[in-house]
Amino acid sequence: MDYMQESLKKHYEWKGKLRVSSAVKIDDKESLSLAYTPGVAKPCLEIKENERLAYELTRKWNTVAVITDGSAVLGLGNIGAQAGMPVMEGKCALFAEFAGIDAIPILVGTQDTDEIVRTVFNVSKSFGGINLEDISAPRCFEVEAKLKQICDIPVFHDDQHGTAIVLVAALKNALKLVKKDISTAHIVINGAGSAGSAIAAFLLLQGAKDVVVCDRLGIIDESEKFNFAQNELARKTNPRKVAGGLKEAMIGADVFIGVSVAGALSKDMVKTMNKDAIVFAMANPTPEIMPNEALDAGAKIVATGRSDFDNQINNVLAFPGIFRGALDARASEINDDMKLAASLALENLVGDDIATNYILPKAFDKRVVPAVAEAVKQAAIKSGVSKL
Amino acid sequence: MDYMQESLKKHYEWKGKLRVSSAVKIDDKESLSLAYTPGVAKPCLEIKENERLAYELTRKWNTVAVITDGSAVLGLGNIGAQAGMPVMEGKCALFAEFAGIDAIPILVGTQDTDEIVRTVFNVSKSFGGINLEDISAPRCFEVEAKLKQICDIPVFHDDQHGTAIVLVAALKNALKLVKKDISTAHIVINGAGSAGSAIAAFLLLQGAKDVVVCDRLGIIDESEKFNFAQNELARKTNPRKVAGGLKEAMIGADVFIGVSVAGALSKDMVKTMNKDAIVFAMANPTPEIMPNEALDAGAKIVATGRSDFDNQINNVLAFPGIFRGALDARASEINDDMKLAASLALENLVGDDIATNYILPKAFDKRVVPAVAEAVKQAAIKSGVSKL
Repeated sequence: MDYMQESLKKHYEWKGKLRVSSAVKIDDKESLSLAYTPGVAKPCLEIKENERLAYELTRKWNTVAVITDGSAVLGLGNIGAQAGMPVMEGKCALFAEFAGIDAIPILVGTQDTDEIVRTVFNVSKSFGGINLEDISAPRCFEVEAKLKQICDIPVFHDDQHGTAIVLVAALKNALKLVKKDISTAHIVINGAGSAGSAIAAFLLLQGAKDVVVCDRLGIIDESEKFNFAQNELARKTNPRKVAGGLKEAMIGADVFIGVSVAGALSKDMVKTMNKDAIVFAMANPTPEIMPNEALDAGAKIVATGRSDFDNQINNVLAFPGIFRGALDARASEINDDMKLAASLALENLVGDDIATNYILPKAFDKRVVPAVAEAVKQAAIKSGVSKL
Repeated sequence: MDYMQESLKKHYEWKGKLRVSSAVKIDDKESLSLAYTPGVAKPCLEIKENERLAYELTRKWNTVAVITDGSAVLGLGNIGAQAGMPVMEGKCALFAEFAGIDAIPILVGTQDTDEIVRTVFNVSKSFGGINLEDISAPRCFEVEAKLKQICDIPVFHDDQHGTAIVLVAALKNALKLVKKDISTAHIVINGAGSAGSAIAAFLLLQGAKDVVVCDRLGIIDESEKFNFAQNELARKTNPRKVAGGLKEAMIGADVFIGVSVAGALSKDMVKTMNKDAIVFAMANPTPEIMPNEALDAGAKIVATGRSDFDNQINNVLAFPGIFRGALDARASEINDDMKLAASLALENLVGDDIATNYILPKAFDKRVVPAVAEAVKQAAIKSGVSKL
């Protein structure tokens, strides 16, 4: 099927993928007087006295805003906020369908970092959580960091952390199969944007020691040709001081993680990898290398971002359960402990069925959201960020 | 029934009055690929090329943001944005139940006029219309005026215009019954905030010539004790230069319109009114004068804001149909022609059943929303603000 043309046709039919409805029947004077004036004055006054009661008396406990400035939508680049709406509606539909969350798309019509922060903060009381989406690097790091500082609800940039959480679960299962250890594996990440940076940070947090990150300009270092976020990442990576680009980085590598562009990885590069190589080629819609080519060139385990191949690394495995758990715990933030718990829950769901073509649960596995949500909720409580 | 306590109990049960759901089933790889990646890239690119396609390919055509800063919620005063949520959810529920509109509460956590404007503008691409709610006067005038200037979607402050539209429909029917003309009637408005100001302006637009507006400090004039908006209104009202306060203004008046506080109008004042007096006492929940007292004192026609008396002047008669019509016309604004059309539609729905206890359609009359919507849509097209 030509998904592009078919999707366009469907979008013309759907005319939108979300619906807002009343949870309360209002069809006579009495129901109007209870749901609206004059009765509604009373819950308002209760919240005025104790703001936390907004979680009891309104829908705040179950709402997430899915917010973009349209600067890095899918792999399409800076297409603007309005053009990002079909993705935001889709994401909100997934929040609803997978986790029963009331998710609302918010398009921010500015790409100025401080103004995005100010705008999102100013509307943040409307929601129980904030999912940042498709904001370009390196601005996304600053936007997220500032919002986390000033908001009292969870702020989560899914392109960074959702991707990292799912990928690390898959990688740890893959490493089990080839009997390698994350702390000694040579790991190459191609792509030093939001996803690549977050993956690197999350791998280091899990004990990885030898991570080399490449961008279009080569292996990132502290020089001026890379941005401040990449300079900072360079200080924590590439311990062997490999020089050059992807080709040089790949020699002897145990793991390739691609969050870059179609065709970025050649068969010849895969051939230079260590024995039992793991290749995660996640560029969308066309991977850095096609699975059959990677396997041909000697890779042992291959994953992509696509649903039509085995081992799909899909954010939908993470964000619905993570926000479900964070909301259920009434967490003030989504911290590292919660991210680690989410990743571990995904890793463990694979269980004894683990195989080179099954290193992650499937996207529609009904066990995923409850397992991730419960793990995240418990981690929130243990780490002291639950306001229950 | 004690609506306050019962409503609080219900709000604890409901835990929110709105629900967001997916309009599309996403339960397998194929539906995921169409509603989300990779297929969704195509509608995004179409909107990038032509922003108007957001009305065809997303839910924008049917969405209204209900926005408050919590500075003047119901009659409760400045209770803050978070405490306003039960009202905003109720309003959104009414949009959904009465007009099938996807309405979303947005709480703005600042009461600085320019920052409200900036914040609302920055998120305005997310919606097809903006309903401002419960923002205190005189800031609400500036917020609305500035947003109308910079937004390309309708911006409507319901506390002003919704109230004025319904009230004028009721008043014109009441004047028919007592065979008086709007252009010669002596009209007193008590309350010079958002509703009072908008009612005065709308009455003048409809041909009223003798309008006197009072506030707590007396009949408004151009002196410093009144704010800039009241000074401006004073220049267009009180042609007979009546001096004093409400008591003086009421002598010989044909119409009293109260948008003030409980008990503001005494029986003695009603006794000084002209023959066949009309008393609209709309303070909530307790009117300026109770209907039986006004009738006792000689009033011929009485209306209030309450559902438990005849002649309820209720905004719910206006805003669902007005936004339905504006959205259906894809109007860039809600202009005077559209407001007049809405008011006339309400006035005419009463038809031959007109009586002193029936000067407005009932809140749950099924004819109201379609009639108002169609009138507003046609007025939008005729006045050239429809983008269909």
